[in-house]
Amino acid sequence: MAWIELPIAPELGREFPGIVGPMTFRPETAAPLNELVNILLRGESTLSPGERELIATHVSWRNDCFFCQTIHGAVAAAQLNHDEELVQQAKRDWLHAEISPKLKALLNIAGKVQQGGKYVGEEDIAAARQLGATDREIHDTVLIAAVFCMCNRYVDGLGTWAPQDPDIYRARAAQIVEHGYSAVTETAAAQVVR
Amino acid sequence: MAWIELPIAPELGREFPGIVGPMTFRPETAAPLNELVNILLRGESTLSPGERELIATHVSWRNDCFFCQTIHGAVAAAQLNHDEELVQQAKRDWLHAEISPKLKALLNIAGKVQQGGKYVGEEDIAAARQLGATDREIHDTVLIAAVFCMCNRYVDGLGTWAPQDPDIYRARAAQIVEHGYSAVTETAAAQVVR
Repeated sequence: MAWIELPIAPELGREFPGIVGPMTFRPETAAPLNELVNILLRGESTLSPGERELIATHVSWRNDCFFCQTIHGAVAAAQLNHDEELVQQAKRDWLHAEISPKLKALLNIAGKVQQGGKYVGEEDIAAARQLGATDREIHDTVLIAAVFCMCNRYVDGLGTWAPQDPDIYRARAAQIVEHGYSAVTETAAAQVVR
Repeated sequence: MAWIELPIAPELGREFPGIVGPMTFRPETAAPLNELVNILLRGESTLSPGERELIATHVSWRNDCFFCQTIHGAVAAAQLNHDEELVQQAKRDWLHAEISPKLKALLNIAGKVQQGGKYVGEEDIAAARQLGATDREIHDTVLIAAVFCMCNRYVDGLGTWAPQDPDIYRARAAQIVEHGYSAVTETAAAQVVR
């Protein structure tokens, strides 16, 4: 049970998992939250959706948010040839992961943002720029990292529950890849019996 | 100069201050960000706008974000009889501030969220509930705190600048109280010479 009384998912007989719980509780704030995440992770960008999901996953892992690191890790894997090993490595051992040097420099920036905005230094930005990162990529990396510092706190600060079965996340990830973040939450909201 | 090249504000001859800089750089993400903040801080609620701005100010102070704590502090004061002393006290000495016991319990929760979602404990929620906090008030407190952990990182993670003159923040706060957050950013964006 979360810290507050959340709507019950009919097919589960209990609260919707993770962020979907508070999002069904307060659809007014869920709408702009989902729009923001859709633009950042799925909108037009020179970073692939899989790369952006790795940034989200890395930050969520740093914040020890089980739900967010697992669902975004599953979405990342779904967009990176189902390479779940790579996703795991992008969490704790990202410096040695088979990702581009530019993405490593962006993950470094994201990790600094997770600690706090002031941890990002001129040298972090210079390193990313030297590896070809553009202003827009640096901007989006900082904002994705900041957004997940929000989402992770929203999910854990309300004491929401998270399923343990990885298959649940794989199935949900496939829906997200196909329909996006807003659609999934709207589907959940439509099931709520009020 | 921020870490990335931001649009120049004609009347300043330099970048727009604080979050307005990156928001004019990327209006697509600014729109849902402003909508989210408008709903949480200015929308219908049993917490007054001034109380909600105090939560935003407290979290921004804890994150040492000068721009956010100063602008939201000014917006709070504008809605709390211009009591700037109270706003200062709600940062570091909130337990002794002249605010309701319920708001103190909510500020305690917000401070835990700032540290990380898992710092919020059953006893924090129970204390707030005992002082009359509703599920919706607890939800909104957690989400406001989480949102400002995002905004603070967005502002400082991109190395934006902040004016030092308190009068600038007082004037901007009056505009925000009258027109809201989206309107202020849209006005800035309209001034950008591209």
